[in-house]
Amino acid sequence: MSSQAASSLQAEVDRLRLQLESLQAKDGSEPITIGNYLLARLEQLQVTKMFGVPGDFNLGFLDLVEDHPTVDWVGNCNELNAAYAADGYARVKEHSIGVVLTTFGVGELSAINGIAGAFSEMVPVLNLVGVPSTTQQKTKPMLHHTLGDGRFDAYIKAAENFTISQAILTDTNTAAAEIDRVLTDCITRARPVYLTLPTNLVFEKISSERLKIPLSRLPPPNDPDVEAFVLDEIIKLVEDAKDDVVILVDACAIRHDARQEVNELITKTGYPVYSAPMGKTAVSETYERYGGIYVGSISRPDIKEKVESAKLIFSVGCLKSDFNTGNFTYSIPPSRTVEFHSDHTKVQFAAFQGIGMKELLPLLTARLQPTSEVARKIPVPNFTTVVPDETDEIITQAWFWPKMGTFFKPKDVVIAETGTSSFGILDVPLPDKSVFVSQILWGSIGWTVGSTLGAAFAARDIGLNRTILFVGDGSLQLTVQELSVMLRHDLKPIIFVLNNSGYTIERFLHGKERKYNDISNWNWTALLSVLGDAEGTRSQSYTVKTKDELSALLDTASFAQAEKIQLVEVMMPKHDAPRALIQQAELSGKTNAYVAL
Amino acid sequence: MSSQAASSLQAEVDRLRLQLESLQAKDGSEPITIGNYLLARLEQLQVTKMFGVPGDFNLGFLDLVEDHPTVDWVGNCNELNAAYAADGYARVKEHSIGVVLTTFGVGELSAINGIAGAFSEMVPVLNLVGVPSTTQQKTKPMLHHTLGDGRFDAYIKAAENFTISQAILTDTNTAAAEIDRVLTDCITRARPVYLTLPTNLVFEKISSERLKIPLSRLPPPNDPDVEAFVLDEIIKLVEDAKDDVVILVDACAIRHDARQEVNELITKTGYPVYSAPMGKTAVSETYERYGGIYVGSISRPDIKEKVESAKLIFSVGCLKSDFNTGNFTYSIPPSRTVEFHSDHTKVQFAAFQGIGMKELLPLLTARLQPTSEVARKIPVPNFTTVVPDETDEIITQAWFWPKMGTFFKPKDVVIAETGTSSFGILDVPLPDKSVFVSQILWGSIGWTVGSTLGAAFAARDIGLNRTILFVGDGSLQLTVQELSVMLRHDLKPIIFVLNNSGYTIERFLHGKERKYNDISNWNWTALLSVLGDAEGTRSQSYTVKTKDELSALLDTASFAQAEKIQLVEVMMPKHDAPRALIQQAELSGKTNAYVAL
Repeated sequence: MSSQAASSLQAEVDRLRLQLESLQAKDGSEPITIGNYLLARLEQLQVTKMFGVPGDFNLGFLDLVEDHPTVDWVGNCNELNAAYAADGYARVKEHSIGVVLTTFGVGELSAINGIAGAFSEMVPVLNLVGVPSTTQQKTKPMLHHTLGDGRFDAYIKAAENFTISQAILTDTNTAAAEIDRVLTDCITRARPVYLTLPTNLVFEKISSERLKIPLSRLPPPNDPDVEAFVLDEIIKLVEDAKDDVVILVDACAIRHDARQEVNELITKTGYPVYSAPMGKTAVSETYERYGGIYVGSISRPDIKEKVESAKLIFSVGCLKSDFNTGNFTYSIPPSRTVEFHSDHTKVQFAAFQGIGMKELLPLLTARLQPTSEVARKIPVPNFTTVVPDETDEIITQAWFWPKMGTFFKPKDVVIAETGTSSFGILDVPLPDKSVFVSQILWGSIGWTVGSTLGAAFAARDIGLNRTILFVGDGSLQLTVQELSVMLRHDLKPIIFVLNNSGYTIERFLHGKERKYNDISNWNWTALLSVLGDAEGTRSQSYTVKTKDELSALLDTASFAQAEKIQLVEVMMPKHDAPRALIQQAELSGKTNAYVAL
Repeated sequence: MSSQAASSLQAEVDRLRLQLESLQAKDGSEPITIGNYLLARLEQLQVTKMFGVPGDFNLGFLDLVEDHPTVDWVGNCNELNAAYAADGYARVKEHSIGVVLTTFGVGELSAINGIAGAFSEMVPVLNLVGVPSTTQQKTKPMLHHTLGDGRFDAYIKAAENFTISQAILTDTNTAAAEIDRVLTDCITRARPVYLTLPTNLVFEKISSERLKIPLSRLPPPNDPDVEAFVLDEIIKLVEDAKDDVVILVDACAIRHDARQEVNELITKTGYPVYSAPMGKTAVSETYERYGGIYVGSISRPDIKEKVESAKLIFSVGCLKSDFNTGNFTYSIPPSRTVEFHSDHTKVQFAAFQGIGMKELLPLLTARLQPTSEVARKIPVPNFTTVVPDETDEIITQAWFWPKMGTFFKPKDVVIAETGTSSFGILDVPLPDKSVFVSQILWGSIGWTVGSTLGAAFAARDIGLNRTILFVGDGSLQLTVQELSVMLRHDLKPIIFVLNNSGYTIERFLHGKERKYNDISNWNWTALLSVLGDAEGTRSQSYTVKTKDELSALLDTASFAQAEKIQLVEVMMPKHDAPRALIQQAELSGKTNAYVAL
């Protein structure tokens, strides 16, 4: 037998042994390796994909991942894209988490912007880092991937700024408990956590007994006395308002798992409901009592009037960032507001710590239901959009977004890059059960490309429909290689590349004619062929330059069915932008004004 | 006049005004904006390129950069690549620094792995960050690019781990001094520094008086009494060794600007000289007394014997990392060693703080010169390589690297990615005045692609010859978009893509047959066409599958003249690796052994 064949055979024996161990461990009576303990926990959390890049301090653990029956390895092209993918996965696959595996130093630092974005936007992501052995952590030799000065703790110090919880595994006695601690923090607080796996501990055996107890995602219960008091206070305000109440739903209703509770509240009460940009699709945009997107002074005028004139506003999970509030232009005084959050409630000016919305909202719904007949008579704007009847052939922003609105189907996942896309899509109602994904607070350009990869996996897992990405040419250049990973895993997103020759959002903020906002023009329609589909059988690319061309493409059944990965280059004018973006840029421009310009 | 034309005209007026101001400021009598003060300092440091990505907190400053007569803006595809480029620029353009401009949060965190690499490998890089106004830094609104919790200091806290000096500009009184402080730290200590530019300060005027005083790169002078003592101690050891001395040159001789002093020492004394991997090309590899690369137990046996049997070793700028020392297998006892460093000297076991090599080496050279006749008789191995006479057509690693040795010319910049390339090229002598660039300590895969961009600019600035990159297919996928920037700026590197189906260095460390070490196969020869050369006039790509094909290509005059950017896909067997890599992997494998495998 050749040494090649022997080594292949040995690898197969190792694989089978490891697989057997993964399965044997399931009954909880067998000892389990620390690596497989972690994987068992991830399996319990419905994690089916692990993102990341191999590196020499995580290769042993990767053996376990590759052999695991339900957690699959997704080898990304780079770590930042992997972190973005974990974030996108976690956003779409609610009740699970995203996982990104990196190596010591170089890998984790490449991913850190993605982790910080998950922190900012409250997305549960586990950053697993393969690190040198516990002995090396003590003796601190000048290994590759170190800073050369013995500071082995520099990377965790950086990570502490962007994760809510960290665990450095050091021995077999505490490993299981440490793993459970960070995972519990991750799922209950919906923020990223950080966990190191030293090379020498991955295959150490520990008891699997703890695995019989599932990790709980529920936050600590509300204090019943305080809760009852808060409920009474809210009911009094509702009575004073004579039922002139509107509900405004925002990001944290999605992030902190209150989507169902909110939907019960709105359907049973009949109060008008609006959404902030980051809360888009938290409630169905086809619901008859849904009035559209409220975003302060840049809201559609009828929406702005209705929200701001209500006597009482239930603000659920609000996150008042600049781009989520029309640059802080909410006209809703606290005296007319009840704010529901994951861990506190604010009634007018009074804050009630520890009273979380997940428990409070159902109680409120039960109390309010009898008033619903009055509530249902409050008028709500009709949130629809009409494709404008423009005579020229140019694909304008004003025409493009409403037109896309006609293309979406129920259960589509719609992902919009920060900038032109995230602003353009705001005014377009999305179908029932569709999922809107965007990064409006963190706003890291290029994020959607990795995020689309993760979202498409999650959509496949939970039976959603198509994954549709809108990204500008400038943004796509940051993270483009991840299209190759979509191809390799046979994902079939539709990718609209808005080719408008550069960083459009920045042109509107500053430097409209500046060269620094220009980018190279790529041959977008040849991209998928280069990145892995040389035969042209698994992908299809298109360029559309006119309204007719785009309309015809959208009407083509094979296109709409999304049976392969598809890229559509949409030629758009350089200095055109959606209404909301122009207004936002004018407001931000004032805040960021450069003296003397 | 249309509003479009008026806005273009206004932009031109602004540009000319700013340009005028940049020039007027030069005589030092005029007030200068803080932004232009910084640019004037960078100009004094011979910086001609600024790398980075525009973002809304740095756009005002970018106006000044775009209008500056000698500092040019290089818009990168993403921030990590930009940081890598700044690092590559600084390595090749000695006596200058690399500059990367990012935006608040998202931009700087994307770049941080590149900055950490510059810290680890001692490369002077300035990370400039455009940040919100000083007022916003105090009031902490929930701006995009923030963490949503008001921690505006989280990013600098992360940066403190990877930069030696930081400055947060807060007012006009201290701005110039703060800028000068971090730049001085950067150039004297050859490490990255961090500087924030709040939007509202960029155009504030300050005195330009300080600009008349150039920043000094010289370290503090040695104490003359201690220095004289150290010199006597060293001379005594040389006498005891009866002139059986070898010189071992390493990374810090390059990084701390002692290249010339080392060359005077070696040429005037005639002592045999060797180099560590990170010191490759610090001294000419064609010098008659140069014996090749010493890397502990994985050195060529004749080199190992000669270095380790010398009675005394002058170790200049050593950096004893795992990959630079054959996994810590130096057999050179301290009792036979004098270590010369930038800020201290170690004679046997005695350390002398504050005695730096830049001043010490010339004094030592003067004292040693008379002994040189004896020294010149010490035998030195002949550091050459022979292209092996292999009969089959496959391009093996053993054949490829010596073959490439015949292709290099004086003043070429040769860049080798971590892994196959950095190990493969060690045994190949490079021509006189060529520059070897690799990241052997930090080892972040994909780094060479950005680095090549920066190195090629630097090479153009200082009149070097071709820039030649060796990168594996796996590594190139991490940072591939930067090829597009090379095209846009008309740079003409030759890029050898070693296509061996995945992460080869990792296969040798662990998981030889594992899927996680596989990558997608791209259509490499169509890449440059997609990334900006649709007409195919500015680039040329090739695939070579056999020795004859590669030999023929190397012999083609138009190829060797490098008149356009060229990419050569070199098909190599999946499980082949250079000798040194295989030996290193065996040694590392023992250290990182996974229990139970």
